[in-house]
Amino acid sequence: MIINKNTKFLIVGLGLLGGSYARGLTEKGYYVDAITRSQSSVDFALEHEIVKHATTKVDTEMIANADIIVFSLYPHIFVRWIEEHGKFIKKGALITDVTGVKGCIVEKIQSMLPEGVEFVSAHPMAGKEVYGVENSNEKIFFGANYIVVPTEKNTEENIDACKRIGEILGFGRICELSPEEHDEMIGFVSQLTHCIAVSLMTCYEHKNLEKYTGDSFRDLTRIANINEVMWSELFMLNKDALLRQMDLFKSKFDILYNFIETDNKDGMMDMMRLSTQRRKLFDK
Amino acid sequence: MIINKNTKFLIVGLGLLGGSYARGLTEKGYYVDAITRSQSSVDFALEHEIVKHATTKVDTEMIANADIIVFSLYPHIFVRWIEEHGKFIKKGALITDVTGVKGCIVEKIQSMLPEGVEFVSAHPMAGKEVYGVENSNEKIFFGANYIVVPTEKNTEENIDACKRIGEILGFGRICELSPEEHDEMIGFVSQLTHCIAVSLMTCYEHKNLEKYTGDSFRDLTRIANINEVMWSELFMLNKDALLRQMDLFKSKFDILYNFIETDNKDGMMDMMRLSTQRRKLFDK
Repeated sequence: MIINKNTKFLIVGLGLLGGSYARGLTEKGYYVDAITRSQSSVDFALEHEIVKHATTKVDTEMIANADIIVFSLYPHIFVRWIEEHGKFIKKGALITDVTGVKGCIVEKIQSMLPEGVEFVSAHPMAGKEVYGVENSNEKIFFGANYIVVPTEKNTEENIDACKRIGEILGFGRICELSPEEHDEMIGFVSQLTHCIAVSLMTCYEHKNLEKYTGDSFRDLTRIANINEVMWSELFMLNKDALLRQMDLFKSKFDILYNFIETDNKDGMMDMMRLSTQRRKLFDK
Repeated sequence: MIINKNTKFLIVGLGLLGGSYARGLTEKGYYVDAITRSQSSVDFALEHEIVKHATTKVDTEMIANADIIVFSLYPHIFVRWIEEHGKFIKKGALITDVTGVKGCIVEKIQSMLPEGVEFVSAHPMAGKEVYGVENSNEKIFFGANYIVVPTEKNTEENIDACKRIGEILGFGRICELSPEEHDEMIGFVSQLTHCIAVSLMTCYEHKNLEKYTGDSFRDLTRIANINEVMWSELFMLNKDALLRQMDLFKSKFDILYNFIETDNKDGMMDMMRLSTQRRKLFDK
């Protein structure tokens, strides 16, 4: 698939990410339809001209009309959707997604699709601690990372097309990982960080904490405002990799604990120097 | 001490915080001098008209001229400075500070001061992961928290004067804690968060991590860019409280680990709901 100005997109699931995809693509002049669950999202998207058409129905004509379909759904709903409606996707169409775990889903979805429909999975490393199309904004993608997660079943042409979507949306860095590498990495940079934030936010009961805090605590707990339905599902679907990353973190935290307990200033300072040196790579 | 437009301030230590105090006070029309270690900081401050006079010498006349002295030094240097030069501070002067730990320092400094000089300790809960007067900016205080840490030796009048400095600088919320309460709180909101960030940043070796990361990891590691000399000193000076907070965090992290390991979705979701609910209080 070569993406051009006649390429028709369909977004399934108009939440924060789906809505931001729709905005970004529409902004760049592409044709975008949407299927989503709630009527209020449909109304909002049409009123703000984020999409051409939108519906809460599974409109088979709309599906058959799409060249590229972007799925922005919870993992188990994505699987169920393909099971029930995958047959309406036209031959030659490319499907992609924004799902936060890959190992348990990519090959499964690929095996369920009708002949001639290709699924190239992707993970836009962008988000906000708010939800819904009402909060969507194409700017969340600018300069962010976009990970394409191909398998042996994918063609070079469609992997390129999937990357092209990332370029169109303004991502800063586009790279490839296998599903296993992706889940290991995401267990670390995304799921572990949410585990830390939630633990930090809930471990200390003090009713006036907000009066005494600085930006450090605010930064470390921004993502402690968390969608419990989505994240508990993501954690369970990536359990092994996540527990490995949690173990890694715990070991290092225990080493630092020991340095502090034994007044090992050199140990602390070495660790902090390494930390500072590594952190410099991460500024956007 | 009633602060008015004739009040003369002296900042000792023109780093990020000292420099930001100087800028904020000068901006509001107060007279500000500075004593600091490096000539380049002196040059910068004079060139940018952040202060009236500045010197790398311990200028006894400048010290004796000050109504209010703000110390922005590492804890052990603060103690040594008072030991050596405290005698030059004029009777009736108020001294305050920005030191990140209090239990080990406030009463010690108070006991070292000449008769008639009062020390009301404070902790501005603001900072950046950069250093030096070159990066100072009075805006880091706007809307932030400012904790005054008085002891029995302090007078109402000077506690009020110390709070007034916070108001002049534009802090959003000004409150009082005892030195013990302060150190317990700061062990949690500031030191524990730095321990977490440093552990997270150093626990996983992967040379391409920055290509795959999103804002969650960036947020949780912003403070992993850390001044190892200052923070190792602060950790050691607040060791007991910090270790207690690290234990609190570890217990909660272990509970979440166990929920994930045993597929306890309800446990995870309850914890996330509490997390979300608590986090809402912390937006600035």
